[in-house]
Amino acid sequence: MSIVMQTRIRLARNLRKYPFPSRLNAAGKNEVVKTVIEAVKNSNSPLADDLDILYVKDLTEAQRISLVESHLASPEFISDSAGRAIILSKDRTMSIMINEEDHIRLQILKKGFDLEGAYDLADKLDTLLDENLDFAFDEKLGYLTQCPTNLGTGMRASVMLHLPALKSGKAVSRIAGNLQKLGLTIRGTYGEGTEPEGAMYQLSNQVTLGISEKAAIDNLKNITTQLVNQELNAQKRMAESLETQDKILRSIGVLKYAKLISCDEAMSLLSNIRFGISCGLIDDIDTETIDTLIGEVQPATMIVNKREELTPQQRDKLRAEIIKNTLR
Amino acid sequence: MSIVMQTRIRLARNLRKYPFPSRLNAAGKNEVVKTVIEAVKNSNSPLADDLDILYVKDLTEAQRISLVESHLASPEFISDSAGRAIILSKDRTMSIMINEEDHIRLQILKKGFDLEGAYDLADKLDTLLDENLDFAFDEKLGYLTQCPTNLGTGMRASVMLHLPALKSGKAVSRIAGNLQKLGLTIRGTYGEGTEPEGAMYQLSNQVTLGISEKAAIDNLKNITTQLVNQELNAQKRMAESLETQDKILRSIGVLKYAKLISCDEAMSLLSNIRFGISCGLIDDIDTETIDTLIGEVQPATMIVNKREELTPQQRDKLRAEIIKNTLR
Repeated sequence: MSIVMQTRIRLARNLRKYPFPSRLNAAGKNEVVKTVIEAVKNSNSPLADDLDILYVKDLTEAQRISLVESHLASPEFISDSAGRAIILSKDRTMSIMINEEDHIRLQILKKGFDLEGAYDLADKLDTLLDENLDFAFDEKLGYLTQCPTNLGTGMRASVMLHLPALKSGKAVSRIAGNLQKLGLTIRGTYGEGTEPEGAMYQLSNQVTLGISEKAAIDNLKNITTQLVNQELNAQKRMAESLETQDKILRSIGVLKYAKLISCDEAMSLLSNIRFGISCGLIDDIDTETIDTLIGEVQPATMIVNKREELTPQQRDKLRAEIIKNTLR
Repeated sequence: MSIVMQTRIRLARNLRKYPFPSRLNAAGKNEVVKTVIEAVKNSNSPLADDLDILYVKDLTEAQRISLVESHLASPEFISDSAGRAIILSKDRTMSIMINEEDHIRLQILKKGFDLEGAYDLADKLDTLLDENLDFAFDEKLGYLTQCPTNLGTGMRASVMLHLPALKSGKAVSRIAGNLQKLGLTIRGTYGEGTEPEGAMYQLSNQVTLGISEKAAIDNLKNITTQLVNQELNAQKRMAESLETQDKILRSIGVLKYAKLISCDEAMSLLSNIRFGISCGLIDDIDTETIDTLIGEVQPATMIVNKREELTPQQRDKLRAEIIKNTLR
């Protein structure tokens, strides 16, 4: 389903033995990092193979920001390097931030729409950690977390949605209010504000207390399916207009010819191409190619892949080249 | 010389026997039309072969406006149809408006920069008319015209210049003041105001009294040559910047892919392509192709060529198709 770009499950866990990270000094945090890493290493689970351990203090600024661009770390996590580490599977499906807001924030990130699959894997990773770690858990409150909004399951399930037609019809802001009543929240993935570049949105559950993981996931899944259908219908209507066709075709023209492209513009134009593929106006490019490009042309990720510093103009030039070469 | 797109010479003449057109009733105007047409027909000059006579009253609105778009008639001329006609050579190099502001406005329009060639031809056409017509001429004032600013030679010599680099550096408005002191005037060819779409400007002599045709043409020629050199130098500097290259290449992308293009946008993008050819960034398209396109995509000219009425959106679609097919 081309509308759902990614599925993510994140679980927040804390170690009973230690205060929350905000109450820990550097030595305490380092101890938590060591404890979690050893728990993973000592596990017999095949999940524990092929894991990379990155200490935030060892990363360049570009590498840190690139983790955020790839949805593997939060801006808050990379803002401080002391006593912080991230464990990553080679394919980056699994990640564990150590000492973000909670001791452990484990995440499963899958392409497309696969909430059950992502939750299954998250549950396995959680079990693996649970084998060798003693989680702070309360019979009544569930998993204890620093922020009360995560108490209970500690789970945040989310889908990244591409909603160009609903965005252009200003429907997303209208929908946002209703979603809140259903225990969900929607926000732009790239860029702040209600009208994000690229029409990419993150839809996630808000309620973690008094609801099971399964119920939360089912709720998110149902609403997502409804939103996807609304988007597809809106796309079908829009695709008939010459203005839409013009906008989509021009985007190809600019992406194939431009010499300099800013990240915002790239998001916006790639979103138009994605829309064109989704509504059948473009058939010689596939969605996966576009989604890979969206990741590759993020500013810090470009610097990391290129292995050299780049001025803003060099980035815009490289971005245009990457896109041109891919779409050729 | 790609900077000078066209050269035009226009001569204003009036018949001694009749009051100026503004003082003539319909019957009087028709008499003037008849007199001029007969003078042309009775001429032995080979110039008189292959001439079309168009009565404004017989033309559709699109045909009238298309004449203006092609620089063959003035907006004033087509605004009233009574007693007005235009004589056109098949290749449209020669044209004679009858009963515009003056009884006769003859024009030579040539591609490129050829003031002497255009004047020679204008002089021949003038001689042809003079054979069988009695022009209003005063020993002291020269040719008598309705507007005193045309008294003397009655000649307006002009060149259409493409000045994208000087326009973008805001140099044209600075230059305009100096030109006035030199007896010349510059104005946008398409669109009113100092920053016309497409960066196409008309540079023409203003003084017709107390100066010979040759002196006026030499003056215009010298200043044009200077402006052309300034433009070429500015283009060379600009062409080195990635921003300029980006702007030019994007223009190709949009023109090759867009589904709808307004006339203003087409002028602007085709101007960018013309700039790209001129400064060597584009070598697989030639200036003549672009100049032909600029004429073909004017709104009324499209309707005339298509031989059917077109809504604004149909025009924008057809314009995009014409451009796409030409640049393919």
